[in-house]
Amino acid sequence: MAGTNRTREPGAVGESPVIILVDPQLGENIGMVARAMLNCGFTGLRLVRPRDGWPSDKAVAAASGADQVVNGARLFDTTEAAIADLTTVYATTARPRGMTKPVYAPDEAAPLMAEDPASTGILFGGEAMGLKNDDIALADAIIMAPLNPQFSSLNLAQAVLLVAHEFYKLGLEPVDDPPEKKGSRPATKEELLGFYEHLESALDGSGFLLVKEKRPTMVRNLRNLFGRARLTGQEVRTLRGIIASLVKYKPGK
Amino acid sequence: MAGTNRTREPGAVGESPVIILVDPQLGENIGMVARAMLNCGFTGLRLVRPRDGWPSDKAVAAASGADQVVNGARLFDTTEAAIADLTTVYATTARPRGMTKPVYAPDEAAPLMAEDPASTGILFGGEAMGLKNDDIALADAIIMAPLNPQFSSLNLAQAVLLVAHEFYKLGLEPVDDPPEKKGSRPATKEELLGFYEHLESALDGSGFLLVKEKRPTMVRNLRNLFGRARLTGQEVRTLRGIIASLVKYKPGK
Repeated sequence: MAGTNRTREPGAVGESPVIILVDPQLGENIGMVARAMLNCGFTGLRLVRPRDGWPSDKAVAAASGADQVVNGARLFDTTEAAIADLTTVYATTARPRGMTKPVYAPDEAAPLMAEDPASTGILFGGEAMGLKNDDIALADAIIMAPLNPQFSSLNLAQAVLLVAHEFYKLGLEPVDDPPEKKGSRPATKEELLGFYEHLESALDGSGFLLVKEKRPTMVRNLRNLFGRARLTGQEVRTLRGIIASLVKYKPGK
Repeated sequence: MAGTNRTREPGAVGESPVIILVDPQLGENIGMVARAMLNCGFTGLRLVRPRDGWPSDKAVAAASGADQVVNGARLFDTTEAAIADLTTVYATTARPRGMTKPVYAPDEAAPLMAEDPASTGILFGGEAMGLKNDDIALADAIIMAPLNPQFSSLNLAQAVLLVAHEFYKLGLEPVDDPPEKKGSRPATKEELLGFYEHLESALDGSGFLLVKEKRPTMVRNLRNLFGRARLTGQEVRTLRGIIASLVKYKPGK
């Protein structure tokens, strides 16, 4: 069974929601968030009161090349200001907070975000405490990733990745498998049968298929085994070379 | 519209695949992997040649409480030894490597892993280079997360999270275990490696692998070919019998 091969076409990355970090602490974590964002085609980053100041060399280092995200980050003094131009805001939490708001898993929220991604923001709290209830109150809905209830505290960049990746996956359209690589043309049935007969004739000669009642089952099992490997024409030639080589080989001489 | 609220019940965490880090570099990253694993209910961690030594205080600190995963990590000198007791192994890569193996996205691989999670391993390469081709050749299939093609290099713990979380999400729905087919137990990696070494040693003897520069590629291609067939333990024994029989066979005598 071949898997589908899904990639976005280069240049086809559409608009994505804005990621808003409220009271983030470590520059490293902001950088790792930037990297995770760009992995998923997100570029809009907003920071509310980053504790260790901004800009941050540690953020640049941890971003591992996602410079456009780090350098383009916008600074805000309040969550209200950071979301002022957006129409839909999600708040991420690790556990239910007893608020009367819809709660979505990341894969449930993604299609809702896709309705107007450029006007959507996703709030993530700081490393130690998460979002404050006042920040959550500003949101239209809550996103809570399903996680091991006995160990549900996610690293900040991991939380961003889970949400951003579900959105990114939405934009993927199944793409046809790439054209066959040269030399990996599937074997024809004629080539396969030639190989099977070569193998079976060598095994008749060597005595491996000597027990007459067992021969049909053994032949069938061997053909099934090699059939499952979906051999290429080149591989069939290699296997025939192996049979010939082993038959010629006289160890100890 | 209210979203569904999906969590595993405490204590209901079933068995999960083993995570195998090959040549990981930084203890911090191993710790972050452990944290991401436990977030998704994974506890089996294996390390092949961790560069900075083991145990690692930095790993413990970065695990943020996932001590059971860090402390239970098992050390191995080779990838072969680390996968010897497993029946199905996936290799994670950031880009296609031109190998003739099925390629799955994490959400496609997860239901396949669920068939026998305790005998499944997932290989992740080191931070700088990812997996070597020889490691990938040991795997039954490749997992490649769909990511921004212009920025697809994931942090190690992020890569683990994307794969582990898709598996974890599956467990939120009850799945019936498929009954084992009689006699069709998949070969263990130890059985497979024993077969590969038997074949390669016979081919060294017969001269088939004589051209030194070509040997690594030929060995890899052969392992890939037989790996795709997903051999059973019985089939491995049959194939070894065939090699022995062909080597002994002296046509014309």
